[in-house]
Amino acid sequence: MNETNGKQPGISRRALLSMIGKAAGGTAMYHAMTALGFAAESSYAGPMDLQGAPKGTSILVLGAGMAGLSAAYELRRAGYTVKVLEFNDRPGGRSWTLRGGDEYTELGGATQRVEFDKDLYVNPGPWRIPYHHHAMIDYAKRFGVPLEPFMQVNYNAYFHSTKAYAGKPQRFRHIQADFNGGIAELLSKAVQKNALNDSVTGEDQDKLLEAMRSWGALDKSNRYVANDASSMRRGYAVSPGGGLAPSPVPSQPGSFNDILQSGFWRYLTAGHDEEFQTAIFQPVGGMDQIAKAVYAQVADLVQFGSKVTKIDQNDRGVTVTYVDTHHPEAGSRQAKADWCVCTIPLSILSQIDVKVSSTMKSAIDAVPYESCVKVGLQFKRRWWEQDDLIYGGITFTDLPITMIGYPSTKFGHPGKGVLLGAYIWGPNAYEFTARSPEERVKLAVDYGAQIHPQYATEFENGVAVGWHRVPWTNGCFGNWSDEARKTHYRNLCQIDGRIVLAGEHASLIPAWQEGAVESSHDAIKRLHARITSKA
Amino acid sequence: MNETNGKQPGISRRALLSMIGKAAGGTAMYHAMTALGFAAESSYAGPMDLQGAPKGTSILVLGAGMAGLSAAYELRRAGYTVKVLEFNDRPGGRSWTLRGGDEYTELGGATQRVEFDKDLYVNPGPWRIPYHHHAMIDYAKRFGVPLEPFMQVNYNAYFHSTKAYAGKPQRFRHIQADFNGGIAELLSKAVQKNALNDSVTGEDQDKLLEAMRSWGALDKSNRYVANDASSMRRGYAVSPGGGLAPSPVPSQPGSFNDILQSGFWRYLTAGHDEEFQTAIFQPVGGMDQIAKAVYAQVADLVQFGSKVTKIDQNDRGVTVTYVDTHHPEAGSRQAKADWCVCTIPLSILSQIDVKVSSTMKSAIDAVPYESCVKVGLQFKRRWWEQDDLIYGGITFTDLPITMIGYPSTKFGHPGKGVLLGAYIWGPNAYEFTARSPEERVKLAVDYGAQIHPQYATEFENGVAVGWHRVPWTNGCFGNWSDEARKTHYRNLCQIDGRIVLAGEHASLIPAWQEGAVESSHDAIKRLHARITSKA
Repeated sequence: MNETNGKQPGISRRALLSMIGKAAGGTAMYHAMTALGFAAESSYAGPMDLQGAPKGTSILVLGAGMAGLSAAYELRRAGYTVKVLEFNDRPGGRSWTLRGGDEYTELGGATQRVEFDKDLYVNPGPWRIPYHHHAMIDYAKRFGVPLEPFMQVNYNAYFHSTKAYAGKPQRFRHIQADFNGGIAELLSKAVQKNALNDSVTGEDQDKLLEAMRSWGALDKSNRYVANDASSMRRGYAVSPGGGLAPSPVPSQPGSFNDILQSGFWRYLTAGHDEEFQTAIFQPVGGMDQIAKAVYAQVADLVQFGSKVTKIDQNDRGVTVTYVDTHHPEAGSRQAKADWCVCTIPLSILSQIDVKVSSTMKSAIDAVPYESCVKVGLQFKRRWWEQDDLIYGGITFTDLPITMIGYPSTKFGHPGKGVLLGAYIWGPNAYEFTARSPEERVKLAVDYGAQIHPQYATEFENGVAVGWHRVPWTNGCFGNWSDEARKTHYRNLCQIDGRIVLAGEHASLIPAWQEGAVESSHDAIKRLHARITSKA
Repeated sequence: MNETNGKQPGISRRALLSMIGKAAGGTAMYHAMTALGFAAESSYAGPMDLQGAPKGTSILVLGAGMAGLSAAYELRRAGYTVKVLEFNDRPGGRSWTLRGGDEYTELGGATQRVEFDKDLYVNPGPWRIPYHHHAMIDYAKRFGVPLEPFMQVNYNAYFHSTKAYAGKPQRFRHIQADFNGGIAELLSKAVQKNALNDSVTGEDQDKLLEAMRSWGALDKSNRYVANDASSMRRGYAVSPGGGLAPSPVPSQPGSFNDILQSGFWRYLTAGHDEEFQTAIFQPVGGMDQIAKAVYAQVADLVQFGSKVTKIDQNDRGVTVTYVDTHHPEAGSRQAKADWCVCTIPLSILSQIDVKVSSTMKSAIDAVPYESCVKVGLQFKRRWWEQDDLIYGGITFTDLPITMIGYPSTKFGHPGKGVLLGAYIWGPNAYEFTARSPEERVKLAVDYGAQIHPQYATEFENGVAVGWHRVPWTNGCFGNWSDEARKTHYRNLCQIDGRIVLAGEHASLIPAWQEGAVESSHDAIKRLHARITSKA
């Protein structure tokens, strides 16, 4: 972005907008943005295109997850001499896919060998990419990684609560239709009682009633009842068929109060939030495909099995001490460079001797990491499709497993399938992580069987990743408190001498790969500006 | 289905249910169904499995669309001697996909040669398959036709009206978030004014307010305003980014009254109806893939280029007179069989000399065919993805084109793409059909350019199918009036002597392939019962 392209010489459009925003609030800012011709929907400025690295300038990148890989790729393109140190023996970091034959050893020493059949997998980390996660989508496109729709919302998936509907799972389509119908009926009543005359004028009241009838599937008397209109939404008791098949029978709506009491309305917006709206994608074949595709561009730069133990700097350069995890007996080694982009998660970085300012060090130490558990379960057949007509999507439950995720790929295939059998945060995640992997899998199967009886006979094998036991992250993602953000975030993101940090922890899009990549792009853009202004 | 498996000997469960339904209405019927252990959600009884055809019994099937192909497949499996006469030189009928190189000549003689690039296509007929269209999904699974999600709802697609928002297209996510927010705010007001005390009790009122805040993205004071909550739904003015990128700025909600006036709330339920809910699919590579897969099972039975001119029957068999369209000079030919399943659309059948009862003949003549036009447009690049971030889904408009459908496949591909540039019913469809194919395409481009300026520079070529000019259907689907249904539907579906009809016109799922197949299954099940009871 051309920083002198604004209305006032010397002040960039973004800086101008920021001033307006601070002085006059969001509305003024929004109108100003429109006036200035901003796309108004993203802070993403398009694919990176850094150029003109001073000859011979070297940059050491720590970590080969999405942040580190994208930094390495963009910096080499700009002309820098780049090297990447990565702890694992594979690229991707948390952009991770577990497939049959993979082995994974967690903290505490438990090793799991994944027993999934060929082509089946689970993503223990991120599993979806919204359409507006520009940087991730850009890399997928640029390097030819095919994307397929991630089925976030499935109208035939379930909501389940041990405390509602006698524990019987309810279909999304039933709850949504009845909730919308109930709202529409109540709002219509209020309008007809003239209770909203101060908010909605006469002509608009008619429109509102018309809208409620249409949107809520009400009858002509503005009531939500068993008829074709409501059955078109929730499904029929006997569906219309062919020839002389039995006549269609409308289904009976459930009770609106039951929905209120169940709290199931919470799940109805699972696809409304910007981060989960359609279009939302997954890479074909597993989430790690994008990281692998970026890695393929920089494979010659990456040194696996390198455990960083110390990061030092002075005014001439950076020295990183590390151990070759395959030859720890060989002792410490060193890598030197002019600059360093460090993408090591704060949970690990806070345990390493890092020479940075006290404000950055305080920031590094200020962010606890979220606990999270994911469990992948292989079943003998895709019974969720065959028996329950659930093709992809998510069933939500108040059981500790939180949800069951049905695979968004190979719909209708006759073979085996792998479910996401649990995706757990918070206290339940700590409890799961404290158990052995086998116990986690067994628990996920036992809980899941309360929703799907097929678990009992169809389950084959599973794998369970408790993120607090993942050796290279000790947690799932940086769990910033509002207070910590206020005090430490900007300090964390500064270029500190010759070191700059990047990763989802250094972004306002926490836990998403997009946060890692946009953080990385922002960091190296500033670093490049610093380097070229010095040169 | 075992017809003597009910509670009363001699009365099937379905018959019993039908009695309960007629006597006591939907609710009683629903509870009875549950009591009888019905799945309660479909009249579909699973894949066909007819057996025991009397040796040497022959059945002539007229038409090789989904109804005819599935009849041929199931009847031969049952042991019948089957032959299929088809007017076209390809199977599938309205399950039709137009690809580059295809030629199509409509009534009036205009021939279009499709100029699409390799692998690009448009489906002039059906283009989606809901997950509960069991028979279609069964055939796709059985014959290995891969299904991919059809993107019905895209939150970043547009609603457009020449009469609202100064003609400026509005994003789905803006309208839905603001509509839901507006409803939630109004309903909260009504509750707080005690206007709904007679409908919602005290405790439920608190729950309802809580639900409205969560579902409608309201603030703590139950107001829908510019903040993080609403921006999470509608998108930010400046999105959260990485590192020291500009701070996020919430977007400004639009006016609720504007939405009411625009009528855009009509489009918000486009994905709520049972027929359009997720999961909803398309066959990979074009809609004709399923018909082609069934055809592959019965290819040896199908005689293309056969134009039926007369259908005669007596108590010994059926005689069908037809013309070989490639050798009309050879005159009429005849095909004979013991029985006949006729899937010829009523629009054509009503013009043929058919020997059936006067009640069936009246039924055949009672159903006008809907007018419908679809236009496929090829563009030099997938600008809807690249510029507008619309990956699949539908933009709705009050322009005659009705909608623009973005392809639900090959997301992010760098090459060319084909849009559904128009999908028109009713009077506009007549008007379009009256014009030449070239004019239809030009009109679709002109209208589309009002929504997407890229049409002007990126359009390459197009194809336009006006269904009233399709020689083998003279229309799109049977447009049953309620009155005609009451008078004629059951007469149409009876076995008339040795002839039974099938097709979407003989179903309660009009215009859908599922209707054609379920109609066919129902017809041949009854025919088989008739034949075996006679034998």
